[in-house]
Amino acid sequence: MTPGRRVTGDLSDLHRAPARHGSDKSFEDLWQALLPIGRDPRSDGYRRFAWTPADAGCREWFTAAAGARGMGVETDGNGNLWAWRGDPCGEDALVLGSHLDSVPDGGPYDGPLGIVSAFAALDAVDAFYGLDGAPLRRPVAVCAFADEEGARFGVPCVGSRLLTGALDPDRARALRDREGITLAEALATAGHDPARLGRDDERLARIGTYVELHVEQGRALVDIGAPVGVGSDIWPHGRWRVTFDGRADHAGTTRMDDRADPMLTYAMTALAANKQARLAGARATFGRVEVTPNATNAIPARVQAWLDARAADQRSLDALLAALTQQARDRAERDGTSVEVTAESVTPVVGFDGPLSERISVLLGGAPVLPTAAGHDAGILAAAGVPTAMLFVRNPTGVSHSPAEFAEPADCLAGVEALSAVITELAGPGP
Amino acid sequence: MTPGRRVTGDLSDLHRAPARHGSDKSFEDLWQALLPIGRDPRSDGYRRFAWTPADAGCREWFTAAAGARGMGVETDGNGNLWAWRGDPCGEDALVLGSHLDSVPDGGPYDGPLGIVSAFAALDAVDAFYGLDGAPLRRPVAVCAFADEEGARFGVPCVGSRLLTGALDPDRARALRDREGITLAEALATAGHDPARLGRDDERLARIGTYVELHVEQGRALVDIGAPVGVGSDIWPHGRWRVTFDGRADHAGTTRMDDRADPMLTYAMTALAANKQARLAGARATFGRVEVTPNATNAIPARVQAWLDARAADQRSLDALLAALTQQARDRAERDGTSVEVTAESVTPVVGFDGPLSERISVLLGGAPVLPTAAGHDAGILAAAGVPTAMLFVRNPTGVSHSPAEFAEPADCLAGVEALSAVITELAGPGP
Repeated sequence: MTPGRRVTGDLSDLHRAPARHGSDKSFEDLWQALLPIGRDPRSDGYRRFAWTPADAGCREWFTAAAGARGMGVETDGNGNLWAWRGDPCGEDALVLGSHLDSVPDGGPYDGPLGIVSAFAALDAVDAFYGLDGAPLRRPVAVCAFADEEGARFGVPCVGSRLLTGALDPDRARALRDREGITLAEALATAGHDPARLGRDDERLARIGTYVELHVEQGRALVDIGAPVGVGSDIWPHGRWRVTFDGRADHAGTTRMDDRADPMLTYAMTALAANKQARLAGARATFGRVEVTPNATNAIPARVQAWLDARAADQRSLDALLAALTQQARDRAERDGTSVEVTAESVTPVVGFDGPLSERISVLLGGAPVLPTAAGHDAGILAAAGVPTAMLFVRNPTGVSHSPAEFAEPADCLAGVEALSAVITELAGPGP
Repeated sequence: MTPGRRVTGDLSDLHRAPARHGSDKSFEDLWQALLPIGRDPRSDGYRRFAWTPADAGCREWFTAAAGARGMGVETDGNGNLWAWRGDPCGEDALVLGSHLDSVPDGGPYDGPLGIVSAFAALDAVDAFYGLDGAPLRRPVAVCAFADEEGARFGVPCVGSRLLTGALDPDRARALRDREGITLAEALATAGHDPARLGRDDERLARIGTYVELHVEQGRALVDIGAPVGVGSDIWPHGRWRVTFDGRADHAGTTRMDDRADPMLTYAMTALAANKQARLAGARATFGRVEVTPNATNAIPARVQAWLDARAADQRSLDALLAALTQQARDRAERDGTSVEVTAESVTPVVGFDGPLSERISVLLGGAPVLPTAAGHDAGILAAAGVPTAMLFVRNPTGVSHSPAEFAEPADCLAGVEALSAVITELAGPGP
């Protein structure tokens, strides 16, 4: 790799180069230090939920990583962490970001790979130019956005949504986790003043470019045979809470005809969601279910389930939701139950910065440009007008949000190298 | 009411009589004192789970009720509570029992009605004969069996099963609640030595007759127009844990064709259970579901669900389970998932003591004799050879295992009166 020079050669060379500049060791050290934090030994997956001790552990790791590089760290009013190289109050900053929190039993790559790669890429640029942490052409920050997965409070990308004003701070403070704890209470417990939440135009205006590296969640890069890709846009997607209400009763003694069992209405709806998504070439999933009272010998009073749905365009997504809602209501009438559908978060299609993405693709020797069905903080920033690009690192199985999530070490290093090429291109030393 | 005399008149008279002997006040006082214990203000239902503080509160209530009547209280090795009138070591005791624990968000009647009615019936007999607690013809006990519902550790009738040897004490000690706490640990925390669990032949041999009064769980008595009925037998029934295993993955980015989603296999199985039960005139319910990792944006790795199934005879029950298992396996093959069915507790049909039940029916002026689909400690004792009978008190809606569970006060007093007639008949004063 030769930072400062446009990489136009074969991508297969990329992963061999960083070793020469020590970024493989810096990647490995950062990775290994983060790996044990928030891991659940029962599943071997991660439970790094926002504002928990595991989250605090990740934040300590971040602060230590920044400190070791002489980068100043600040936590903004929305709980996002920033490590600065150069003037934190300067203009036109290049921000490399992702997140450290996880879904329940998530894998180690989704989020952390972007943060670790950003630090390692800065190390690679440093080593190559012998900069020893000296300022670059533009201020550069590594940013860990708070609560990207929304695993605890139900709304994803809370940190970036608050920053851009896409999430109302009053609504955010009132969000509750499964134990009934509000986000405001969780923030206060973690030592963060909940009154500081809210849109931060000044900070937003300082971000000249945002680049997020992320493990691919799918197998498009496997099919193409490329270690690194560039994002084009994010499918429209959303989360809906679907509440099925019936009548609790004894499971043994209540005649089948006398029941109002919301589990049946839910079960039909879950099957219908799968069918509708297949028909539409879209995605629909019921991954979270909460049953009340959830007793073996009681017909449930309520089944609450969360629908995650995504499609290539808004019209398909709307049609899927409408068809599904109708099917659920029809079945509820038969079951003597009721159905209520509440949108918890809905994100329209978001395109990343076209010219920037194209420039990065060329810089990486013609890396493929592809859409993603996953939401990211990059999507929130792009929707708020920040010039934004994403890099994806190949995932051999396509599996994510699972302990089995994986990327080959060589592909991770190819990601680091790609990111260091981006840094050099957009903020590297020289005039 | 005239205890000692066979009641052959119209049952409609019964509920007026106890008032004359103060049993309405003693019922009401006992009922009101128990009512606040373990109530969840969110649902207005009860959460009196075995060996919790709520359970301890119920036990204190029991001890106080017995103490106020001069009855000695003992806790047996299996955690069952006994209040004795007469010699606890005597032969041929008449035991009136039920339980104080509840399902999650259960109602106030299931279990406690039998205990409260037993104390109130003894009061009525006392008042009528002016006995002032003097011994009756036989030793009489009121017994509150431990953990009848199995809401916490998954196995119902733990106290009576241990007593009769139907549940192995090692297996019982190893049972775990949802927090992973074993029954042995829970017992120790509650101050009960888990080493004392196990078959108690001596105690069992002293029970000459067991009579359990219970709120009806269904509407058979409503249809007949009778306030009190007598049990004939208990349907064969059981609980099966059904584990659906798939592959966790990202809900947004994983193509529908690339999934192994156990939620789909579960949903089809829940619908199939309902259909099979309707076809067989049986009962099948999935009332408890646990999803791993239970995140909105993750395809589940595992869905665990509990089937409660019951039928009028063993052949129907076996056929239902076989058909359901086959349908689940077929669907799993399509979904790329797997299904495992594990019996947690299976109880064959249990007939109560025919001559005893007939005698009580006649005593109560021709009370209807009917089967039940609900398991009870009475079923466990009957299966162990104890001469056993059950009384049911009319439930206007048939609803149970729900905060809406109800019985009219007049019907409750009719139950008390029926029980006092049984006491007088089987153990009343005189030679």
